Amino acid sequence: MGSEPAERACGILDVDLAGIAANWRSLVRRVEPAGCAAVVKADAYGLGAHRVSAALAQAGCRLFFVATADEGIALRGVLAEPIEIAVFNGVLRGSADEFVKYRLIPVLNDPGQIVDWRDAAVRNGGLPAMLHLDTGMARLGLTAREFDRISERLKVPGAIGWRALISHLACADEPAHPLNETQRARFASARAAIGAMPCSLAASSGIFLGRGFYFDFVRPGAALYGVNPQPGAPNPMRRIVRLKGRILQIREVDRGESVGYGATHTMVRAGRLATVAVGYADGWLRSLSHRGSGRIGGKRVPLLGRISMDLAVFDVSEIDPARACPGGFIDLLDEDYDVDAAAADADTIGYEILTGLGRRYHRIYRDAADQW
Amino acid sequence: MGSEPAERACGILDVDLAGIAANWRSLVRRVEPAGCAAVVKADAYGLGAHRVSAALAQAGCRLFFVATADEGIALRGVLAEPIEIAVFNGVLRGSADEFVKYRLIPVLNDPGQIVDWRDAAVRNGGLPAMLHLDTGMARLGLTAREFDRISERLKVPGAIGWRALISHLACADEPAHPLNETQRARFASARAAIGAMPCSLAASSGIFLGRGFYFDFVRPGAALYGVNPQPGAPNPMRRIVRLKGRILQIREVDRGESVGYGATHTMVRAGRLATVAVGYADGWLRSLSHRGSGRIGGKRVPLLGRISMDLAVFDVSEIDPARACPGGFIDLLDEDYDVDAAAADADTIGYEILTGLGRRYHRIYRDAADQW
Repeated sequence: MGSEPAERACGILDVDLAGIAANWRSLVRRVEPAGCAAVVKADAYGLGAHRVSAALAQAGCRLFFVATADEGIALRGVLAEPIEIAVFNGVLRGSADEFVKYRLIPVLNDPGQIVDWRDAAVRNGGLPAMLHLDTGMARLGLTAREFDRISERLKVPGAIGWRALISHLACADEPAHPLNETQRARFASARAAIGAMPCSLAASSGIFLGRGFYFDFVRPGAALYGVNPQPGAPNPMRRIVRLKGRILQIREVDRGESVGYGATHTMVRAGRLATVAVGYADGWLRSLSHRGSGRIGGKRVPLLGRISMDLAVFDVSEIDPARACPGGFIDLLDEDYDVDAAAADADTIGYEILTGLGRRYHRIYRDAADQW
Repeated sequence: MGSEPAERACGILDVDLAGIAANWRSLVRRVEPAGCAAVVKADAYGLGAHRVSAALAQAGCRLFFVATADEGIALRGVLAEPIEIAVFNGVLRGSADEFVKYRLIPVLNDPGQIVDWRDAAVRNGGLPAMLHLDTGMARLGLTAREFDRISERLKVPGAIGWRALISHLACADEPAHPLNETQRARFASARAAIGAMPCSLAASSGIFLGRGFYFDFVRPGAALYGVNPQPGAPNPMRRIVRLKGRILQIREVDRGESVGYGATHTMVRAGRLATVAVGYADGWLRSLSHRGSGRIGGKRVPLLGRISMDLAVFDVSEIDPARACPGGFIDLLDEDYDVDAAAADADTIGYEILTGLGRRYHRIYRDAADQW
């Protein structure tokens, strides 16, 4: 006897792996004949890099991007060669051996990294790398001046096998922003200076800026996971995540009673509250206090007061009591109230809702679309 | 050869276990002869429940609180009986067997849970429980009406061995808030109605409201981990957490260059930027964008523009270049800029900074104070 983990979990997180694969394939078709990699950094944006990457590899993806060497090392345990794993953060001095051992491709971001990696490449009889040119983020990548100094040498075969030249758009989610065209033009001109190296500029939102941004391959991340790559326009991607929070208790409250920490919410009429076992420690951001909501049977139930570490309180006065009872659930993310909607209530972006998804949820991975 | 995880980590999170034990002992002394439990829910507020709980048990703590049954099950693997583990969320229908098997004490929050647990207790020849009376949170716990209906029966020995009556303060971090005294008086009157059961009202901030709030034992959490239990007053607790973010790249930028996503920051003069491998996926909340800061050698370096998923950019123009170089670090949390300071910049509370601390950091646990 006894309960299964799902039966006692504070929340159930449902990840549609088939949907992630379908999103990837839809982007493949959109950008053809350009190629399509997949970005699975930050544990595949919180959804579980092992499961997500295996599903994407099964769908045909052959190039994956992570942020750190450790993410790459872990991913190599799931994805065998010839699948390529590239590391955005590049290689720290002293870590070249791990890149060689696990066949990771560093994205080299500054001249010092290039010098160090060339030394490693000479020692190892040649090694692959990508080169990151900054075109307008001032974050990672060579400056234009640094790039100009080395671009001639990139054309000459050497110990480093240049696998790709990449850059990253700062404002791709704002199609009208002038920086998009500025970055595209800078990148196109860099490409012209170096010849045949594969080039990649667009991540999720960049793909939707049009063919001029595809270059040789694109690198979607967020769009694979259902974040809208075109904020303000209809979301062309399948939603991937559903989240249900467990109802621990239903409570009748009187008019005038205060709710939660700081007594910042006061009931304007008597009602019925549901206390759910999801809080900011589960990534249900505290900035959702007073503004977030859940759903029961598609009907909105407002979140009242401040979110606690492990708990949140919802007003279920308008819900049939038979549908809101202890042990049951409130939908926190679904088809309609998706990560972008939650992000709007939390004053952030869907990406942060995803990467915040907590460790206490019971996770269900769906391999086929009909299993929802 | 090759690098150690610490050498290639995106950040180093330093947890002072000796400091946590010292904080607990200081609260023990403060509240004597009342007792002092420890709250280690949410993975000990993000710091690692196993390590933290072992250190607290070593210091003499004999009663621990977690939020969920699964947290209790995991903790029982670290803490053997007679140490007691209580579960705030109570017991869901169907999960009683796990509580019995792992000797977990449920905090019963509503009449239905009491009925179910009494059945389990009868089947098992008696079981312990705590009872939660809500005195002003409207979150978990019996209402006053529900409590009044059963308080007489609590005095009679039965299958449930009542281990404690607890309640929780809504506004303990605001000493002048009238709800504190209201809740104290309600709790004192409930205690008078039931006789000899041990009673507990105060968590971290409640302890600093004075002796009238101690009752039989207190339940600190945040204060153990260095959060100031008295916002606005000097912090009496030792700081527990230090966090350093790895510098990936140093970049010279011109006046007029924009920084980060959305190009929301523009350099008003030429300068030098450090890109650090910590982002909102590491719990460095996106709401710190434009407002957060780091330290190098104690000197403040402002965070510029928006925080990315895996990266943040700091202005190190005023720092000696020899002290800000790739592979080095920027202090993100230290003695001066602590979790409360970061929380103020992020428009939240220190608790959320703690529980958000990410999984990609290399974690160092210090057992002795002189190891800093």
